[in-house]
Amino acid sequence: MGSISDRKVMQEAADALTSLGVAWEMDIVSAHRTPEKMVDYAKAARDRGVQVIIAGAGGAAHLPGMVASLTTLPVIGVPVKSSNSIDGWDSVLSILQMPSGVPVATVALNGARNAGILAAQIVSIADAEVARRLADFKEELKTKVAEMSHELTQHGR
Amino acid sequence: MGSISDRKVMQEAADALTSLGVAWEMDIVSAHRTPEKMVDYAKAARDRGVQVIIAGAGGAAHLPGMVASLTTLPVIGVPVKSSNSIDGWDSVLSILQMPSGVPVATVALNGARNAGILAAQIVSIADAEVARRLADFKEELKTKVAEMSHELTQHGR
Amino acid sequence: MGSISDRKVMQEAADALTSLGVAWEMDIVSAHRTPEKMVDYAKAARDRGVQVIIAGAGGAAHLPGMVASLTTLPVIGVPVKSSNSIDGWDSVLSILQMPSGVPVATVALNGARNAGILAAQIVSIADAEVARRLADFKEELKTKVAEMSHELTQHGR
Amino acid sequence: MGSISDRKVMQEAADALTSLGVAWEMDIVSAHRTPEKMVDYAKAARDRGVQVIIAGAGGAAHLPGMVASLTTLPVIGVPVKSSNSIDGWDSVLSILQMPSGVPVATVALNGARNAGILAAQIVSIADAEVARRLADFKEELKTKVAEMSHELTQHGR
Amino acid sequence: MGSISDRKVMQEAADALTSLGVAWEMDIVSAHRTPEKMVDYAKAARDRGVQVIIAGAGGAAHLPGMVASLTTLPVIGVPVKSSNSIDGWDSVLSILQMPSGVPVATVALNGARNAGILAAQIVSIADAEVARRLADFKEELKTKVAEMSHELTQHGR
Amino acid sequence: MGSISDRKVMQEAADALTSLGVAWEMDIVSAHRTPEKMVDYAKAARDRGVQVIIAGAGGAAHLPGMVASLTTLPVIGVPVKSSNSIDGWDSVLSILQMPSGVPVATVALNGARNAGILAAQIVSIADAEVARRLADFKEELKTKVAEMSHELTQHGR
Amino acid sequence: MGSISDRKVMQEAADALTSLGVAWEMDIVSAHRTPEKMVDYAKAARDRGVQVIIAGAGGAAHLPGMVASLTTLPVIGVPVKSSNSIDGWDSVLSILQMPSGVPVATVALNGARNAGILAAQIVSIADAEVARRLADFKEELKTKVAEMSHELTQHGR
Amino acid sequence: MGSISDRKVMQEAADALTSLGVAWEMDIVSAHRTPEKMVDYAKAARDRGVQVIIAGAGGAAHLPGMVASLTTLPVIGVPVKSSNSIDGWDSVLSILQMPSGVPVATVALNGARNAGILAAQIVSIADAEVARRLADFKEELKTKVAEMSHELTQHGR
Repeated sequence: MGSISDRKVMQEAADALTSLGVAWEMDIVSAHRTPEKMVDYAKAARDRGVQVIIAGAGGAAHLPGMVASLTTLPVIGVPVKSSNSIDGWDSVLSILQMPSGVPVATVALNGARNAGILAAQIVSIADAEVARRLADFKEELKTKVAEMSHELTQHGR
Repeated sequence: MGSISDRKVMQEAADALTSLGVAWEMDIVSAHRTPEKMVDYAKAARDRGVQVIIAGAGGAAHLPGMVASLTTLPVIGVPVKSSNSIDGWDSVLSILQMPSGVPVATVALNGARNAGILAAQIVSIADAEVARRLADFKEELKTKVAEMSHELTQHGR
Repeated sequence: MGSISDRKVMQEAADALTSLGVAWEMDIVSAHRTPEKMVDYAKAARDRGVQVIIAGAGGAAHLPGMVASLTTLPVIGVPVKSSNSIDGWDSVLSILQMPSGVPVATVALNGARNAGILAAQIVSIADAEVARRLADFKEELKTKVAEMSHELTQHGR
Repeated sequence: MGSISDRKVMQEAADALTSLGVAWEMDIVSAHRTPEKMVDYAKAARDRGVQVIIAGAGGAAHLPGMVASLTTLPVIGVPVKSSNSIDGWDSVLSILQMPSGVPVATVALNGARNAGILAAQIVSIADAEVARRLADFKEELKTKVAEMSHELTQHGR
Repeated sequence: MGSISDRKVMQEAADALTSLGVAWEMDIVSAHRTPEKMVDYAKAARDRGVQVIIAGAGGAAHLPGMVASLTTLPVIGVPVKSSNSIDGWDSVLSILQMPSGVPVATVALNGARNAGILAAQIVSIADAEVARRLADFKEELKTKVAEMSHELTQHGR
Repeated sequence: MGSISDRKVMQEAADALTSLGVAWEMDIVSAHRTPEKMVDYAKAARDRGVQVIIAGAGGAAHLPGMVASLTTLPVIGVPVKSSNSIDGWDSVLSILQMPSGVPVATVALNGARNAGILAAQIVSIADAEVARRLADFKEELKTKVAEMSHELTQHGR
Repeated sequence: MGSISDRKVMQEAADALTSLGVAWEMDIVSAHRTPEKMVDYAKAARDRGVQVIIAGAGGAAHLPGMVASLTTLPVIGVPVKSSNSIDGWDSVLSILQMPSGVPVATVALNGARNAGILAAQIVSIADAEVARRLADFKEELKTKVAEMSHELTQHGR
Repeated sequence: MGSISDRKVMQEAADALTSLGVAWEMDIVSAHRTPEKMVDYAKAARDRGVQVIIAGAGGAAHLPGMVASLTTLPVIGVPVKSSNSIDGWDSVLSILQMPSGVPVATVALNGARNAGILAAQIVSIADAEVARRLADFKEELKTKVAEMSHELTQHGR
């Protein structure tokens, strides 16, 4: 992530990965304040054994796209609705609208939990254990809705 | 893709995959016109050996999100600026803003080529040959810019 | 509705139907978390005697459109301004901009009460008693404005 | 519709109704240029045996909402992307965002064909023949996608 | 105005008129709940001696445009950011984007005070006393800025 | 108007005034290129006998608001969708969203004809002849719709 | 700045200049309430030795552009999200979208601190001392990120 | 600029600089395809004697902000409405909404000519000759408007 102020949002990515049994590391790398560190981090990632990079940023959010320009790993971008954002539109468009040749896998505004799940889905194509946990997770989603449905169902006239 | 009218855009995904040496199949599955086929397709994909699903749609674009709800594979969504779209905003938001638990890896409006590259990046985490081709592709991007730069550089006063 | 978090908004639809003497049932069916239940629910609705389906959802709101793809009943969509929504635009566009062939009767953002009234209007084309109650309701709207007008009217200079 | 310039779009509603065997009439009633005619038309519609009113308009599109204020029939609004519109946003919001108490069943921008289908769905709740035709129509949608799918399906690598 | 909930905003128009010595009356007339009263009010206004009509409304705000369709008096529209509005965009566009032939003099979102000043400016073209008060008002604006400037001016390094 | 490129749009204001029998003059006064001329023009207008000023501009459209800051006459602003505009949003918002104290009577994007009609409506509060012509004009609008209605009315099934 | 209500935002520009050792003055000059003072201020600025003008305003924000029309100095515009603004879009577009010939160097919504830094960057092209302080400031940004990184870095699984 | 496809727009910056007698160089440096070249270019610019950098890019336009992160020179950003842009909003927001600490002086969409003029204004704070040419340029703007005014001025009734 680009700033410690993004942590509250981005922690959900780590939590999702933990619950799905995928190892992760979290650090602050700012495209605009530590551009050289960003270059080094992104270029070294694949050789260090990283499989997916999740980058979250707000406003004119350049971190996900710049990281994607520096690695061949899949990069997931999380638009953060930061305090200086125009309702999140700047964060979304700065991450989503990448030029041809350099994709960023963008998730919903503040969608860090989904970024974690997506990273696990990517890892799962070569890790049957993670695939199994994702299938369990899908079942849990159904169960929770069934419980909500049980609680809510009403008739009236 | 949801309609043959999306083919012109979506063909670029197939072309990108071909150029990166990743096998693909292309079909029309409409969320709104063939919902049962969509359910069957998405649920069977992992067992058939599919590793990534790219889904493109326009307007109220439900195909990527619905496919994602029916599989644990990573799903890449391509917002298509179809003729009935409001400048593409509907396509983008219908695909990007998925609820917590069901991510779609969204790329830029009409960004099918990037969807193909992203799919290859995902495949590359367990396929060193594809990783190598992606590294070559990044070098080609640089070479093309160097050529453009050579052609363009000017001074004036 | 797709989640119990939509209940506060959607309850107004049930209340409107009750006040207009139209029978209703309320349940949670999630397009993204319980897609199979959604398919079953929508396909069985007409044969169970349902006349109109009201579906509310937020963000990338696929429930109304997916239900509409699975039934020939009129489907009313309520865009909900959920916590993960970009000011409601995603909810509105995901429900409104359905492709040709599969309409959703969309009401205003958080307009669940109007969804209930619209459902009663639809029922009223074959139910004279409901039509009479709707006419009474229109008179009440006028009376309330007359009372507000009586309270407010002022002159000044 | 409010102007003859909307005819090209609105004709699709009539065509959809014809194909589904539902009787229709088409006229020009302008909220802003013939407000008294609009009042008379809307107030008389139910007694004349009309079951659903489809109103299309562009820009600051007041026709659907004003008609809805004057009848207890269901009113379907078609936002038209007219020449004076700001990309259709004004048409959409003027029709969709009706206040509590007076719903308009809004369809997609220029979605007149869907307005016709929705009107038929409404009529179908008390007309089994129309319901049957709608079921046939849904099958045709599937068949067309199957044909497109047959034509398109490809594999590559 | 269309509802007593708009009063807090619209009172500023009356206050501005009072401070500029222009007589006014205030009433609630709802386009959607009392359409016949609106027709009667707007058609009778000129003969009753009204010179300008200020109409405020929110959401799908049809009151200003409908009143303008029923009178040849200048009509000033105030878009109100009501609770059901999408950030005010619906109110603004529903009032501003009137079709050719039926203008509404639109002021800023929640700009009721400016609506009062504009009404006084209109009246002033035939009332020298009001024109004089407007000139005084412009001087007061300057004086207030001069006072603020006096208080604020700073230098630093 | 601010530039000769706005002439095509703004000529419609002059044409409307001519057809309603109101005298007019047309000139180019640029807020950004001839600010001093703008100041002189606006400050002198009332004493020269001008009753209403219509100002059209595109992009960051400052002319209407700046003229309004320099006169107590009513100022009508026409947002022009110029070539450098972002779909007209900049023109609309720069003219409409004036601060408290300095109103601009804003009409629709490219709505110069309505600006002319609105100016005539303003003049009509003290000119019975113009008021009569406006009443005639309203009748013509109705007649044209009646003719269109006569031509269009259809029934089908 | 145009109003004392903008002070809270604009003070950050002064603070940034102070921290970078650049002399500044701050005053209130309103485009709409004191247009003549604005003309005088802008025209005299270069001869008084001013090198850069920072102008902040909200809503239909004309101050930066009008000042730019009256001087050949670089003018930095700060869009302020004032209480009467539509989510800041009006402020941004009124300042950014200047016509050809009259640029305004626009910074982010409420970005007064960046306006101060940009002004220092401009001054630095002829002031080596300021250039040196800017280089130090860039190092501080890196150090702060390094500290945040040190505090945050985590691993998990 | 980031791509040769931006040349048509960006050439206007060079032309403006030439007409104002300011030396320039033009090159292609892509944030996403040649990130290392971008780092080298931006870091070396001040020592090479560059005074201002103009960076133009479209879509998720990261070039201006990334260059600004790597230099203490003033950086002017030109949002380009490229073919893959969503009506230019992505380009504008990606450049404008920079985080605190790293400003980009943003000009209008496709406003490369203004970028050139702004660069000259910046240079002029230490170059009296360029300042004189800018004053002449301002006079020419007035003269052109006077000529247009002479051609256009009309009266009518």
